Amino acid sequence: MNATAPIHVVVWGENRHEKINAAVQKIYPDGMHETIAAGVRSLLGDSATVATHVLDEPEHGLSEEVLASTDVLLWWGHIAHDDVDDVVVERIHRHVLEGMGILVLHSGHHSKIFRRLMGTTCSLRWRNDGDRELVWTVAPRHPITDGIPQPLIVPGQEMYGEFFDIPEPDELVFISSFSGGEVFRSGVTYSRGFGRVFYFSPGDEAYPVYHDRGIQRVLANGIRWARPTLPRESYLVTPNYAREDFDRPRRWNGAGFEDWTTGEPIPAE
Amino acid sequence: MNATAPIHVVVWGENRHEKINAAVQKIYPDGMHETIAAGVRSLLGDSATVATHVLDEPEHGLSEEVLASTDVLLWWGHIAHDDVDDVVVERIHRHVLEGMGILVLHSGHHSKIFRRLMGTTCSLRWRNDGDRELVWTVAPRHPITDGIPQPLIVPGQEMYGEFFDIPEPDELVFISSFSGGEVFRSGVTYSRGFGRVFYFSPGDEAYPVYHDRGIQRVLANGIRWARPTLPRESYLVTPNYAREDFDRPRRWNGAGFEDWTTGEPIPAE
Amino acid sequence: MNATAPIHVVVWGENRHEKINAAVQKIYPDGMHETIAAGVRSLLGDSATVATHVLDEPEHGLSEEVLASTDVLLWWGHIAHDDVDDVVVERIHRHVLEGMGILVLHSGHHSKIFRRLMGTTCSLRWRNDGDRELVWTVAPRHPITDGIPQPLIVPGQEMYGEFFDIPEPDELVFISSFSGGEVFRSGVTYSRGFGRVFYFSPGDEAYPVYHDRGIQRVLANGIRWARPTLPRESYLVTPNYAREDFDRPRRWNGAGFEDWTTGEPIPAE
Amino acid sequence: MNATAPIHVVVWGENRHEKINAAVQKIYPDGMHETIAAGVRSLLGDSATVATHVLDEPEHGLSEEVLASTDVLLWWGHIAHDDVDDVVVERIHRHVLEGMGILVLHSGHHSKIFRRLMGTTCSLRWRNDGDRELVWTVAPRHPITDGIPQPLIVPGQEMYGEFFDIPEPDELVFISSFSGGEVFRSGVTYSRGFGRVFYFSPGDEAYPVYHDRGIQRVLANGIRWARPTLPRESYLVTPNYAREDFDRPRRWNGAGFEDWTTGEPIPAE
Repeated sequence: MNATAPIHVVVWGENRHEKINAAVQKIYPDGMHETIAAGVRSLLGDSATVATHVLDEPEHGLSEEVLASTDVLLWWGHIAHDDVDDVVVERIHRHVLEGMGILVLHSGHHSKIFRRLMGTTCSLRWRNDGDRELVWTVAPRHPITDGIPQPLIVPGQEMYGEFFDIPEPDELVFISSFSGGEVFRSGVTYSRGFGRVFYFSPGDEAYPVYHDRGIQRVLANGIRWARPTLPRESYLVTPNYAREDFDRPRRWNGAGFEDWTTGEPIPAE
Repeated sequence: MNATAPIHVVVWGENRHEKINAAVQKIYPDGMHETIAAGVRSLLGDSATVATHVLDEPEHGLSEEVLASTDVLLWWGHIAHDDVDDVVVERIHRHVLEGMGILVLHSGHHSKIFRRLMGTTCSLRWRNDGDRELVWTVAPRHPITDGIPQPLIVPGQEMYGEFFDIPEPDELVFISSFSGGEVFRSGVTYSRGFGRVFYFSPGDEAYPVYHDRGIQRVLANGIRWARPTLPRESYLVTPNYAREDFDRPRRWNGAGFEDWTTGEPIPAE
Repeated sequence: MNATAPIHVVVWGENRHEKINAAVQKIYPDGMHETIAAGVRSLLGDSATVATHVLDEPEHGLSEEVLASTDVLLWWGHIAHDDVDDVVVERIHRHVLEGMGILVLHSGHHSKIFRRLMGTTCSLRWRNDGDRELVWTVAPRHPITDGIPQPLIVPGQEMYGEFFDIPEPDELVFISSFSGGEVFRSGVTYSRGFGRVFYFSPGDEAYPVYHDRGIQRVLANGIRWARPTLPRESYLVTPNYAREDFDRPRRWNGAGFEDWTTGEPIPAE
Repeated sequence: MNATAPIHVVVWGENRHEKINAAVQKIYPDGMHETIAAGVRSLLGDSATVATHVLDEPEHGLSEEVLASTDVLLWWGHIAHDDVDDVVVERIHRHVLEGMGILVLHSGHHSKIFRRLMGTTCSLRWRNDGDRELVWTVAPRHPITDGIPQPLIVPGQEMYGEFFDIPEPDELVFISSFSGGEVFRSGVTYSRGFGRVFYFSPGDEAYPVYHDRGIQRVLANGIRWARPTLPRESYLVTPNYAREDFDRPRRWNGAGFEDWTTGEPIPAE
């Protein structure tokens, strides 16, 4: 868990467009998740391990075991949000709240996991028209912007525009404009429980966005930023404390209080 | 919907402690929800209508019809969060995102609706020990603090302490201290979708907190602050726009685009 | 000071371009400040009094007496920031911290008073090229956005772009895009001391921006939002309190403590 | 400037109490700045160089040369804020906006540099009465909280209480309570220009606070957090850009535009 250990990254891809859409296959012959994974792998080098999983695996490839050893999860989905099992969504949610980082990409704004983390509709304006997107940095010394040009130019991309129905971000990192004149909060961060969340909007399946070095660099920076620095920690149950006993949380076991950590009974005061 | 029309308030109470706990019955003989309702009614006067509903009514008293005509909902629950029907939770959530205000009180921090709106565990430290709670204003010109003493003194109250696992608030209005030395972000606001959310922590069933004029005044101020100023508006589905046609969102109907509002077909460009 | 009393508004104009630049004279024959004042006056009606003052008056028209009776000050300056007397800047700053609202317009981003309130350079990217500016609402139920179209279209305007060196806003209300592709946080709010601050960027002297009804409406909304609801209150000197004497702050007078409010000596404990 | 180079830290002390107050001399025989410096030096080891400077040096020890090579400045002052030369304050301010980190300690809340950075009075409630202060973490995974106990107990300390007149913090890291029942936002962070600011309140001269390992650790964490990762960068003058020439800012030299970086004349378009 120390800062020099490799970051364990999982890139999750819906991988449906790639099976049915020749145009997408041409751009992403190995699947979008593999292009994303290769991009961040080449930038993070030995500092990270990068695995991929897809929707059609059992448990979508995201078993308890896989998530427990994942530091940062990248999520790309678009047309099959409803096919993601609620049990798996619940599991991812729990791991984020316990410390796992998550990067939600593009159309993942409408994924079950992002909506669960945000508590809002996460809806937005859109138009798929090959707009040029300019990604402007508004937080110049944020680690996610390290080495990113001002602006980062995406030659063609689906338009996502405001109003974007998300909670007020902890940090607004990027704002995009589009040829049509729309604007979008395209890079936003949140803390949720003990985990860090970064949403980054460029990346429609119909454009070669994830082949772009600048985009890859945003993702690599985001992974470094979102990595946990401490082991998972659960806070689902509320700890009880005796007066001025700041160090020994207690749990009610039906008959009396027991030590939160050891389970040892605590005599009534 | 104009600012001079009465605010339609619903105070929702779990109303379980009141049935089984003589000490609570003594403090709140008509149920906690009735005391809360009477308090805000006396402060808001003609500017509001204040109704009450409880868990044991059909649909917990919160039918689509009731919620559709509610401007601000107050929520108090503690021991029966799991008995609240997920369908009703979903309905309340939708109404908040469409513009209904909500005040979540005390142990409502662990309610399904608050967790859904926040996306976190909403857990906290606690101790029920009759601590004196001092509620300090940290946003002195916020409308919710209007007329509230610095500090507001609650002679006896359950301790709720940090870490409180909530998203970074939009506005931090109150911070409390307790006799035992703990602190708590006891008044926090959020915007979620088109609705406003205010969480206020004083108010355990074992203490006569809601009989206090200062506490009632916080609630009345909160109701005024959270009231919607525009009709409900849904943003569940993402609107599509043609280039530079800023005023006419479109919806895909399977065969082509139709006007978002009128349903009229829009010819391909 | 109650919510139904008229809001006392002062529109302050630098009024220099208007004296030397025929093009500006043509757009604003009575001076920009008069056009701004007429616009908000027509929208606020009896709910406000709207006076104007300019740089070349004694004390720039902003004597202690004038400021003491001003609820909300609008500030427009561009080429003569350095001609504003530091004493007057200090006075305005004090009044804002004590509760006066302030709306800083366009090139006022580089005014002494805005820099003083922000603590940063308040610099930005610019280009004066007749760009179309689209002002997008990103906080749809904020009172400043009431009745503002999505987007508000400004046919021609100077480009102001990111990075805009301001502190993280309390609320991000508007984001603009420009024909050239730049983006700008064009409407931001802050609380400073007991006063409210709204910066709104459209409004270069070379374009008839302040004749636009939508722009006027943003300013009128901003005035309503920034108005103080309580009398001025100074917090320059730090109040001292005895233990658990929450209601009686004390001041050290050299020989002992005296009551903060009455000046009555307080005996040593 | 890379992340493995040593951090150049300067601890600045007013060093006046130490000359005139025997009680303070006893606690801090070498001056408070030396105790603070020794504490962070022992925690940061080879990863930092830690120098000290005091008020009574020429230019208060903070020449342009010293500041230009300082990564993070720690500021402790109390009774002599007015003796700090405005020219030096201006210089520190500029360096922070260009990227230098700053940690403002305890009574530094009323220093000229902190007020300049904040734009508010920075006043607060106080009482010097030997209260026990409990410093609670409210942002558990923030790097400044790494290894800090929950709560950090300061056995005796001056009380600083709310309302604390500061801008809404970017991040609220610590909240303190005091024996007398007051609360205080005791650890807050800000971004200002390209620099990072951390205010941390424990540390009155009359108590041995800076000998405490936990307090030292907060400061060492704060230094790591506030260190710049890029060279100083000035943004005092606003860059001008031609349309869609995103990479070449221009400067007006009176006769025409020249390249911002090279000074080369740019022909009119």
